[in-house]
Amino acid sequence: MSKEDTETIGRLLDQLTFNNEGLIPAIAQQFDSGEVLMLAWMNPESIEATLKEERVVYWSRSRRKLWRKGETSGHVQTLMEFRWDCDNDAILLQVDQCGVACHTGRRNCFFNSVRDGNITTISRVDVDPESLSNR
Amino acid sequence: MSKEDTETIGRLLDQLTFNNEGLIPAIAQQFDSGEVLMLAWMNPESIEATLKEERVVYWSRSRRKLWRKGETSGHVQTLMEFRWDCDNDAILLQVDQCGVACHTGRRNCFFNSVRDGNITTISRVDVDPESLSNR
Repeated sequence: MSKEDTETIGRLLDQLTFNNEGLIPAIAQQFDSGEVLMLAWMNPESIEATLKEERVVYWSRSRRKLWRKGETSGHVQTLMEFRWDCDNDAILLQVDQCGVACHTGRRNCFFNSVRDGNITTISRVDVDPESLSNR
Repeated sequence: MSKEDTETIGRLLDQLTFNNEGLIPAIAQQFDSGEVLMLAWMNPESIEATLKEERVVYWSRSRRKLWRKGETSGHVQTLMEFRWDCDNDAILLQVDQCGVACHTGRRNCFFNSVRDGNITTISRVDVDPESLSNR
């Protein structure tokens, strides 16, 4: 990581708006298919780690620590592009998801839907969730 | 809207988790191309209106009122599918976006990127933002 890159991360963090918990929502999208995988949260430290390591690191609100996605399961998200929005208060991570994004063993987390007036589960479990000890 | 549909919306609202401001983040995605258009916020009333009207209605945090996307600009989002995630705390709206989603006149809001170590604007303005009086 060059000095220029470190300066760029500093400018990025100055530009972004964090909520009153110091967090910003981040959407993860599979870079080639366009599939929306999940929504999670980042703080400045996780953004810096994501850009430096080129793999996605979130902030876990439940565990109150950095969450290196796939750290124990191996289902990592390799960072392809880091984008953010017009209001500087939402992030779009274009990633290459290894395996599955969801702790239920599904490829993505958005498997609940309203279809034909009913609440429906629209995707199958691909991986035994017992094998995913890390969310 | 049938009685069954109203009951389904009630069950959905019971299932979803809202933050301490009574809101839940909602990602809008163009249903056919997969393009992520924007991230905004919904409250129970806006979710009910979205499902009943089959067009997206957000909650505007700045104006503190329902925000019928495209109400004055005509750049509405027709609802194609309403999904939510494993933790019941994020929504994915698959929509058909008429015109542009972003108040800057760009197709989507995620036009800022880090590329080659620099902060870069990656998409062009398609529509004069002066013509978009409604965000």
